[in-house]
Amino acid sequence: MITTDILIIGAGPTGLFTVFEAGLLKLKCHLIDALPQPGGQCSEIYPKKPIYDIPAYPEILAGDLTKNLMEQIKQFEPGFTLGERAETIDKQDDGTFIVTTNKGTKHHAKIVAIAGGLGSFEPRKPLIESIINFEDKGVEYIIKEPELYRDKKVVISGGGDSALDWAIFLSDVASEVTLIHRRNEFRGALDSVEKVQELKNLGKINLITPAEVKGILGTDKVTGVVVEKKGEDGFIIDTDHFIPLFGLSPKLGPIGNWGLEIEKNAIKVNNALDYQTNIPGIYAIGDVNTYPGKLKLILCGFHEATLMCQSAYKRIFPDKKYVMKYTTVGGVDGFDGTRKEAPKAVVKAIQ
Amino acid sequence: MITTDILIIGAGPTGLFTVFEAGLLKLKCHLIDALPQPGGQCSEIYPKKPIYDIPAYPEILAGDLTKNLMEQIKQFEPGFTLGERAETIDKQDDGTFIVTTNKGTKHHAKIVAIAGGLGSFEPRKPLIESIINFEDKGVEYIIKEPELYRDKKVVISGGGDSALDWAIFLSDVASEVTLIHRRNEFRGALDSVEKVQELKNLGKINLITPAEVKGILGTDKVTGVVVEKKGEDGFIIDTDHFIPLFGLSPKLGPIGNWGLEIEKNAIKVNNALDYQTNIPGIYAIGDVNTYPGKLKLILCGFHEATLMCQSAYKRIFPDKKYVMKYTTVGGVDGFDGTRKEAPKAVVKAIQ
Ligand SMILES: Cc1cc2nc3c(=O)[nH]c(=O)nc-3n(C[C@H](O)[C@H](O)[C@H](O)COP(=O)(O)OP(=O)(O)OC[C@H]3O[C@@H](n4cnc5c(N)ncnc54)[C@H](O)[C@@H]3O)c2cc1C
Ligand SMILES: Cc1cc2nc3c(=O)[nH]c(=O)nc-3n(C[C@H](O)[C@H](O)[C@H](O)COP(=O)(O)OP(=O)(O)OC[C@H]3O[C@@H](n4cnc5c(N)ncnc54)[C@H](O)[C@@H]3O)c2cc1C
Repeated sequence: MITTDILIIGAGPTGLFTVFEAGLLKLKCHLIDALPQPGGQCSEIYPKKPIYDIPAYPEILAGDLTKNLMEQIKQFEPGFTLGERAETIDKQDDGTFIVTTNKGTKHHAKIVAIAGGLGSFEPRKPLIESIINFEDKGVEYIIKEPELYRDKKVVISGGGDSALDWAIFLSDVASEVTLIHRRNEFRGALDSVEKVQELKNLGKINLITPAEVKGILGTDKVTGVVVEKKGEDGFIIDTDHFIPLFGLSPKLGPIGNWGLEIEKNAIKVNNALDYQTNIPGIYAIGDVNTYPGKLKLILCGFHEATLMCQSAYKRIFPDKKYVMKYTTVGGVDGFDGTRKEAPKAVVKAIQ
Repeated sequence: MITTDILIIGAGPTGLFTVFEAGLLKLKCHLIDALPQPGGQCSEIYPKKPIYDIPAYPEILAGDLTKNLMEQIKQFEPGFTLGERAETIDKQDDGTFIVTTNKGTKHHAKIVAIAGGLGSFEPRKPLIESIINFEDKGVEYIIKEPELYRDKKVVISGGGDSALDWAIFLSDVASEVTLIHRRNEFRGALDSVEKVQELKNLGKINLITPAEVKGILGTDKVTGVVVEKKGEDGFIIDTDHFIPLFGLSPKLGPIGNWGLEIEKNAIKVNNALDYQTNIPGIYAIGDVNTYPGKLKLILCGFHEATLMCQSAYKRIFPDKKYVMKYTTVGGVDGFDGTRKEAPKAVVKAIQ
């Protein structure tokens, strides 16, 4: 059982910044995310694109935003359960919560902050009936550990940035990379498309277009796939892995059944006070919540996280009086023993 | 008469970021500030100190925060009325407003956003009865234009960073700099204190401590000051300027009489919707407002400004339906003709 003060569901920008604000209040955080990496939409959908409306950043790449947030929170030593989906929640008699993931990992916390964005990112799967039998037996929809593919044969299918970028990356790792797409045209960053063209010319990527994977071969694990080129008969490609990269789409998913008030696929919260849901002790912040005038913007999630942490503090310590101190004035004391502080003014005589 | 869509009172971080969010909605902004420079508390009180809780900035100097915000908003070409205090407001029959400053400058706007922080920064004045007769006639509490002092004799009084820094700066501009402080000890950044010591040793700053300026001489302008060293008789120093730098303190001031609901020196707003005050069309954002759970933090001002602009847009264009676009997706079109946009994905065949 993992125990913490605030359990944050969703490691997008909102969830990450919550760790910082909680840390200032000396509250520990643990994050669960269905994705294998933190950053939410920013790291999954548009890491290389610029955002222009993060305050005081005339421009910042979504990937750098995530990196900077990770750097900002590191002294508060957040825990992470990545690649798992929060599935069930049980309120205990003492008002605390136990949250269990689809893989059975249990988390015990005084406060639950749902920062689940548009929902847990779930892969779009190709329409191959038998595919579920091969999941984690050679079929992967998300690449978590590139070393898994060292000296293996892999077939990637898809026509976007993910398919292009992983084909490029794995061409140096796997023994054979085949990229299959149902059109001749790929849609992605210009340099990725050009790099794949170059690797194809060098014979380092085997390209089959326009084509689709129609079947999977193997008994207890993938040994090959059946490919059909448009208007032609199917043929077999031997492979150890089949990696369909058709994008991830977010689904509110199991959180929808937790007894929370839902409106338009989002969780209703009390924006007049602290972004708490209808269940005391459960908050919803960032894209996942809704209230009159709600905007699904990153900067709004930051504010919501900050107010929420103050309310969580009062819930955990009803009798303590907390006096907010500016970080500039009070400094920042990390749980790892580090301290950040402004250079002190001196009081010194001039002779 | 200056005309604009949104008149922002206060050019602190909240007011500045409002220009950006309004600009995305194609609304023009003009800012009034009592200080001669933008940045509010950040530029006036602690420009060289680090802030640790600006999201995605593990550390940023308050002065750099201001600089970055100015850079972020520049394509929306905000207007500025600096060094003037907003004094009166008159609601017109058509629901628009005219705001007049202490210097008589008039501003006409559809919406007024009060981002006045802790209030308009007003100088702390020394207790010399005749001083008001010499204001702007050789007595200045804020240095707006350093060139005014070229080859002049100046007397600065004060013992903090402002007094130290301006004494250093003017030692290269003025013909004679005298620094007077009622103690021997100065309180400021170590390097400023050391620099003043060095300039004193070189004879470039004339230091008189512990001492106070007790009187001002002159008919239509300052010609000298009367100085008393502790326990000694007063003596006269000839000077063209007397600059008391005792710090600025914020006063809610005239805004307190605008008919707005005030609670604990702050303006009550509707935080459940759009941060509007009890007078429709007048909003209050940032440190200047109050609501249940309010935190006087910079990141909260950013959120409040953003929601406020959406509400202002609906007030100005009740019939238009605005659909928010992410800056990453829609880009940013400046009023100066510039455009920022993410590099487009290409759709390209690989042969
Ligand atoms: C193309 C694009 C461009 C954008 N441009 C901008 C922009 O310019 N400015 C701006 O402010 N915003 C922009 N956005 C929106 C911005 O990305 C979101 O507002 C932001 O990511 C929301 O952050 P969050 O932390 O609330 O949620 P998310 O980033 O969505 O993160 C939520 C995380 O929670 C996880 N999760 C959800 N449910 C579960 C569960 N049950 N178990 C485990 N994990 C779960 C998800 O996997 C996800 O990683 C853009 C979005 C897109 C897609
Ligand atoms: C030493 C110190 C350290 C701080 N550290 C932090 C920190 O670490 N993190 C954090 O988030 N915050 C911190 N703060 C607080 C932060 O500076 C404020 O929250 C922020 O400046 C508020 O921004 P604002 O734009 O709302 O108001 P302000 O910055 O106060 O700006 C308001 C402006 O309005 C002007 N104004 C007011 N009334 C009038 C009028 N009638 N006419 C003309 N002009 C007017 C004022 O002159 C002023 O320039 C700190 C503050 C101080 C003093």
